[in-house]
Amino acid sequence: MPFPVRVGDKWTAKILVCLRDGPRRFSELQVPLARVTPKVLTESLRAMERDGMITRTVYDEMPPRVEYELTPLGHTLFEPLAASCAWNAEHGEAVARAREEHAQRV
Amino acid sequence: MPFPVRVGDKWTAKILVCLRDGPRRFSELQVPLARVTPKVLTESLRAMERDGMITRTVYDEMPPRVEYELTPLGHTLFEPLAASCAWNAEHGEAVARAREEHAQRV
Repeated sequence: MPFPVRVGDKWTAKILVCLRDGPRRFSELQVPLARVTPKVLTESLRAMERDGMITRTVYDEMPPRVEYELTPLGHTLFEPLAASCAWNAEHGEAVARAREEHAQRV
Repeated sequence: MPFPVRVGDKWTAKILVCLRDGPRRFSELQVPLARVTPKVLTESLRAMERDGMITRTVYDEMPPRVEYELTPLGHTLFEPLAASCAWNAEHGEAVARAREEHAQRV
């Protein structure tokens, strides 16, 4: 269950961090994001592209090369991302505890 | 479609603002939140209660009185909420434009 304070979907924050220092290929993203399936990673990237956070560039090579890169708009997410990480670091345990207590009550 | 930077679900932010100045009954919440159905409002309140953001108190009266109130943990959400409102105010239009352009491309 996601925390209340968040940026994008489950993988957006991790993808942002992977792209922070420059463009990456799909296969390069899969290394640090080993736990995400190709299908889910594709969906997350597509949602970020739809929202103008990243660009997807296909290079006409053999085999074709596809790179993902943060846009200036994408880079603006690091500030609210830091705020949400700070909130989750400070209050995440309290939310988890509340969820446990709630689960026992109902 | 929700914006990337958010707090809780679609109605959490509005409920937080309604409860900022003190406890409210369900019917009192429905006045400023006229567009939300009772079912969806109940689900949002239940999720906030589950996460420890609000308490739900039933007073043994006839008819029974039920009040919702922010917890200290709930009050901590106003800071990230302000950050997300600021980000959405500054970049919301760019996201909307990107979504329109993306819809025309695909």
